[in-house]
Amino acid sequence: MSKPLSRRDMLSRAGLAIGGAVAFGAIQACSSEDDPAVCPDPEACPEPVECPAPTECENPNPLPTAFPYEDHISASFQFDLATVQEEAYHGYFAAPGTTAMRGCCFGTYSGLLADLQRQVGKPFTHLPVNFGLFGSGGIAGFGSACGATLGGIFIINMIVKGASRNPMITDLLRWYERTPFPQYLPQTVNGGENSAILSYTAESIADAQTIAASHLCHTSLSHWGSTKGVPVNGPDKHARCARLCADVAKRVATVLNTYLAGSRTYTASFALDTSSAGCVSCHPATALKTSPTLAGPNASAMQCSTCHPTQTTYPHPK
Amino acid sequence: MSKPLSRRDMLSRAGLAIGGAVAFGAIQACSSEDDPAVCPDPEACPEPVECPAPTECENPNPLPTAFPYEDHISASFQFDLATVQEEAYHGYFAAPGTTAMRGCCFGTYSGLLADLQRQVGKPFTHLPVNFGLFGSGGIAGFGSACGATLGGIFIINMIVKGASRNPMITDLLRWYERTPFPQYLPQTVNGGENSAILSYTAESIADAQTIAASHLCHTSLSHWGSTKGVPVNGPDKHARCARLCADVAKRVATVLNTYLAGSRTYTASFALDTSSAGCVSCHPATALKTSPTLAGPNASAMQCSTCHPTQTTYPHPK
Repeated sequence: MSKPLSRRDMLSRAGLAIGGAVAFGAIQACSSEDDPAVCPDPEACPEPVECPAPTECENPNPLPTAFPYEDHISASFQFDLATVQEEAYHGYFAAPGTTAMRGCCFGTYSGLLADLQRQVGKPFTHLPVNFGLFGSGGIAGFGSACGATLGGIFIINMIVKGASRNPMITDLLRWYERTPFPQYLPQTVNGGENSAILSYTAESIADAQTIAASHLCHTSLSHWGSTKGVPVNGPDKHARCARLCADVAKRVATVLNTYLAGSRTYTASFALDTSSAGCVSCHPATALKTSPTLAGPNASAMQCSTCHPTQTTYPHPK
Repeated sequence: MSKPLSRRDMLSRAGLAIGGAVAFGAIQACSSEDDPAVCPDPEACPEPVECPAPTECENPNPLPTAFPYEDHISASFQFDLATVQEEAYHGYFAAPGTTAMRGCCFGTYSGLLADLQRQVGKPFTHLPVNFGLFGSGGIAGFGSACGATLGGIFIINMIVKGASRNPMITDLLRWYERTPFPQYLPQTVNGGENSAILSYTAESIADAQTIAASHLCHTSLSHWGSTKGVPVNGPDKHARCARLCADVAKRVATVLNTYLAGSRTYTASFALDTSSAGCVSCHPATALKTSPTLAGPNASAMQCSTCHPTQTTYPHPK
């Protein structure tokens, strides 16, 4: 006579795997291997019962899907402009580990991302808040593309679909070229502005503004410092660039608010300036400079005259 | 006499919830409610068997922690240079939704990230592979910072700790300024190079190279197109920039291989060029231009003479 099945035997026979693997097995209450004398009426004993496989736990943090994420954002979503600006402004000073350049890219990016994380949640909560660390001072202080614009572009890049993405980005850069900075008046002035030479109050901030005619950090900042008689490091640089973070974040948030609440298509509204359009008429991307007398091709969409002031009339130096 | 328990009864009594909730219940094979006549020897029937609660799924994707991620990478890790280069090259052509600019930033970034995802796994598997979509053509075709460098910088930014991050980034940009491109000879030539004017074979690629003296896309690309007599869109642009993606990815991977396998500190090895150092001696970041005769401050760390050729001697035009 078979020994009655103990609980341990049952579990063993059922092949239950405990500790992470799927539990799945036929629990043979009275199988054909058992002595009929012990279990004389197979009908009385339960039919084989399968311990169901545990359903897969819902994964609270799935792998990030590919950008863009606009389908995760409802039509009613709107960035909170006041919050985004204030956080972008203080984010400039809060960037971890930054030097005298502080964190313009971190400020704009983290200010916008934080609002998406609060209001939308996933998948924005899956993204590191400090992707923009490197962007300060025009990429690690190199004076290249303004880090505040980069931080805003990262947000556009993760939300907006292909056909609208690039026009929205180039419009942001052209808006930057033509806008006087700084503008933002913070709710609370950060201690990092201590000892600034210029005044950034509501009454006097217009006197602290310049138009860069370039999205490049060193062009924007050097022109401002040279025009206003202030150094491009220290408290005035911080006061200017932290407020500029808020200005760029507000622009990005405003454009995205309109885009997301509307038809979700975007058409560029800032054309190439007239002078640069003249340059491109002789220097299109398709130009074949097969002899020294021919014009070469150009791969820029920025304002030419800012960096090439001697080449705005023809003939011009090569 | 109780009716023998059917399989359906068993499942029902066990209170098994199927379809998402936890399955947990005592399966009473022959409970005290059953007629002993039907199940005369309770010992012969199985003891109550509990379907074990599924262990909590291990969360495979925790929320991303803040950069840098170098502590997640072992000392034995090394980028596979051959794989990274080939994937960066083909990634240029594979960028989703890109236009004639294709995807230099996507190529470099995705080529490097894919190797980290394969070899290291988490947390790199938590990052979207298409963060670099916007970077093509110097940020959405604007001609700003070369997208291939941006893609590489994103990888440095997510791995390298603060004190080493910026010097490694500025070194990459200066290396780019001074390096002839393109260099890479792909294992398989991509169909996107079809109809190129120049030859990019091992025997002739040196004839297709130029040194940009700038990390800016439009400067790098326009100089190349003008020097080689080819347009800056179309097959030659693609052949050049896809190979450049591989070149930049190789540089980033090589520098990171040395960094990660060593002391994990980095000191800049590319100094500012002599001409630009002369510019900065009159135009330091601290300069106070409080009158028209004084020199203004400068916020650039790039090679000045490339874009300001008329200002390399003194006195120079303002």
